[in-house]
Amino acid sequence: MVSKVLIANRGEIALRIQRACREIGVQTVAAHSTADADAMHVRLADESVCIGPPPASQSYLNIPALITACEISGADAIHPGYGFLSENAGFAQIVEEHGLTFIGPTAEHIRLMGDKITAKETMRRLGVPCVPGSEGGVATLEEARRIAGDMGYPVLVKAASGGGGRGMKVARSAEEIDTAFGAARSEAKAAFGDDTVYLEKYLGRPRHIEVQVFGDGAGVAVHLGERDCSLQRRHQKVLEEAPSPVIDAETRARIGGVCAEAVAQMNYRGAGTIEFLYEDGEFFFIEMNTRLQVEHPVTEAIFGIDLVREQLRVASGLGLSVTQADLKVNGHAIEARINAESLPNFAPSPGQITAYHAPGGLGVRMDSGIYAGYAIPPYYDSLIGKLIVHAADRETALARLDRALSELVVVGVETTGPLFTQLLAEPDVRSGDYTIHWLEKWLAR
Amino acid sequence: MVSKVLIANRGEIALRIQRACREIGVQTVAAHSTADADAMHVRLADESVCIGPPPASQSYLNIPALITACEISGADAIHPGYGFLSENAGFAQIVEEHGLTFIGPTAEHIRLMGDKITAKETMRRLGVPCVPGSEGGVATLEEARRIAGDMGYPVLVKAASGGGGRGMKVARSAEEIDTAFGAARSEAKAAFGDDTVYLEKYLGRPRHIEVQVFGDGAGVAVHLGERDCSLQRRHQKVLEEAPSPVIDAETRARIGGVCAEAVAQMNYRGAGTIEFLYEDGEFFFIEMNTRLQVEHPVTEAIFGIDLVREQLRVASGLGLSVTQADLKVNGHAIEARINAESLPNFAPSPGQITAYHAPGGLGVRMDSGIYAGYAIPPYYDSLIGKLIVHAADRETALARLDRALSELVVVGVETTGPLFTQLLAEPDVRSGDYTIHWLEKWLAR
Repeated sequence: MVSKVLIANRGEIALRIQRACREIGVQTVAAHSTADADAMHVRLADESVCIGPPPASQSYLNIPALITACEISGADAIHPGYGFLSENAGFAQIVEEHGLTFIGPTAEHIRLMGDKITAKETMRRLGVPCVPGSEGGVATLEEARRIAGDMGYPVLVKAASGGGGRGMKVARSAEEIDTAFGAARSEAKAAFGDDTVYLEKYLGRPRHIEVQVFGDGAGVAVHLGERDCSLQRRHQKVLEEAPSPVIDAETRARIGGVCAEAVAQMNYRGAGTIEFLYEDGEFFFIEMNTRLQVEHPVTEAIFGIDLVREQLRVASGLGLSVTQADLKVNGHAIEARINAESLPNFAPSPGQITAYHAPGGLGVRMDSGIYAGYAIPPYYDSLIGKLIVHAADRETALARLDRALSELVVVGVETTGPLFTQLLAEPDVRSGDYTIHWLEKWLAR
Repeated sequence: MVSKVLIANRGEIALRIQRACREIGVQTVAAHSTADADAMHVRLADESVCIGPPPASQSYLNIPALITACEISGADAIHPGYGFLSENAGFAQIVEEHGLTFIGPTAEHIRLMGDKITAKETMRRLGVPCVPGSEGGVATLEEARRIAGDMGYPVLVKAASGGGGRGMKVARSAEEIDTAFGAARSEAKAAFGDDTVYLEKYLGRPRHIEVQVFGDGAGVAVHLGERDCSLQRRHQKVLEEAPSPVIDAETRARIGGVCAEAVAQMNYRGAGTIEFLYEDGEFFFIEMNTRLQVEHPVTEAIFGIDLVREQLRVASGLGLSVTQADLKVNGHAIEARINAESLPNFAPSPGQITAYHAPGGLGVRMDSGIYAGYAIPPYYDSLIGKLIVHAADRETALARLDRALSELVVVGVETTGPLFTQLLAEPDVRSGDYTIHWLEKWLAR
């Protein structure tokens, strides 16, 4: 087993990783910015090293500072968490070149899945269902018109290096393709320094369903069912649940089996998520995330597994602790992302927390790095906590989330907590009848 | 289903019951003393009624006030929690006579099990293994000498109406029986107004193992395995775990089956616990508790069941939601009782809590009614919270408890939290090698 892990992240995920390390006797080093010196994970870490000031480019994205922090502290491994450097192939490579263990996939796999075109080609070749579209980048408007015409409108023009909805445009008819193609290219160029775009069939009312996979790096892989993350705002997930209200056991086994087989074929190492759009009973591959996801706790709840511990095992060459046959769905779990944001506009609400009380009791898990007296710095993502509930069935999980939200107290900053209480009163949310567009429409009502 | 439940209790168990009610849409009425007006469960209840001042005799034990509170609020059921009136047969009877639902067994069953001699006779008749001893009360010293001589020393002289170690004396040899018999009788008379005592074989190094049972009141009953509560101080449980480190699946099924069959035969209704001493592979019945236990969450964790919800179902005549075949042990759970007491003497430490932070993350459940700013009143039991951890195996559960304890912050009063951190460092605790005497010896070391 690795012996000392440097955590190259902050907030709730840094604390999450630290807890897993502590529970197996692995030492932790909190690599933190000057703005995070008072963070809970820094206080609870075995050691801490300051890696620079905010913004993140000078600290959490500062590769030389992180490598130096390992050398200073004697850490033999780095856990990148999510965001920041977690899907940076160059970082993974540098970490390994310094004789350190990168707790995640190989640089090659990160690179392969980081480019959306090669990711899609790879997944299609490995039998994963993909949305129909261009085979690779589309260089000219003429080619775009021809492919879109053959495929049928509406179509989506997407940046090859894109993410988070940037460089993505819909053309609903032949009249719109010229504008969409041009706009997507310029946005892609501006945002990612690469104007390569590709075309995909546009789905009108899809759900976002993603499959959790885990590989040992040596050809063995399992899946841990799906998460339904259709409730999104501006391509950011807001509420996630597992299992999906629309996926039955047979479908789960089938799509999960396809995904596990694909990553096994790749000799994929560690945790990964294969994201799909799902419409009319069909799955369409979007992208693969080569890291732990924010919403991983809902999977942990229903499978009774510690995914970070599993990451530590696999990174240490100990293989997976479970086989596919061990993995049974047990009940239903829902996660509500608690952001320090003021409603209804979701404007960031950093500042000092004067009072904090976490919900408790049966089936409630709170993952948060905040505490009374803590000042949320203004430099980072607004996620301050994740409230996860687990119950025997979806109806009870919804009721439990509602109950837990009624106990949550955060004073001093505004949070998205009240949003979930409102959402839980909506018949569509209660019945699970929503697409990825539902929340935006509801917010605009 | 009952529609509005009056909670005739306080502290963490009042909140526990309230949470279960809220999750199934049952209204709650917090019946509280003047000293508990600021309690969290009072703040979160749908309604609250003040039932009198401390001490408990004037409020939580005040039957007319509780019945009146039901009439005022329109509550159609009463949940007694544990302690207070939970095992008072007269109360159960009065509740039912007023046309209200008592969430617990019938008055007859409470009465039957409340008398230790009839309880033992009943259990023996129903096939539950009992410790050898006198058949019923022992009236004279001569009879005590004869029975003890036949049974062999050491023997235990116990008050028939006893509990909590009062009216209980050990005679290690024939020389000690006269003193033990006399002392037990006077203590019994003083404590319970009844000097009936009986004799039992004294076990030298037993564990305390108890079986959770649940009956539907109509001849169907299940067991939910055992809890090991051997770590005790002055007959008060300190740390509880499930399953027991010394019970295997076959033994669990056997003793559990015997207990479930016994309560099924009795047409027992609701939650109950059959307590045993366990030594050299043999179980010896001590008593049956006809209520929810403080330590019920460890059973909930490993069986994935909500016992309070089950109580509400059964009291409402809906029967059990599970069959024996549904009930599978999943992992290991440990509960640490957090008392407002100062170590090393366990002196009560009431007062104002100036800061409070509950542990969080995977596999951690905190059941507590305290919050920052709350003043713990001096009138009641010192239990202020229960920290429960659940993990795939005992070793991980121990590590998780240690991790969670490191995150617990209670400022303003002293707590027993640090005791558990010390206990977790003990090889005997880590290996599960302890009897009911272990903790007292360790504390006296």
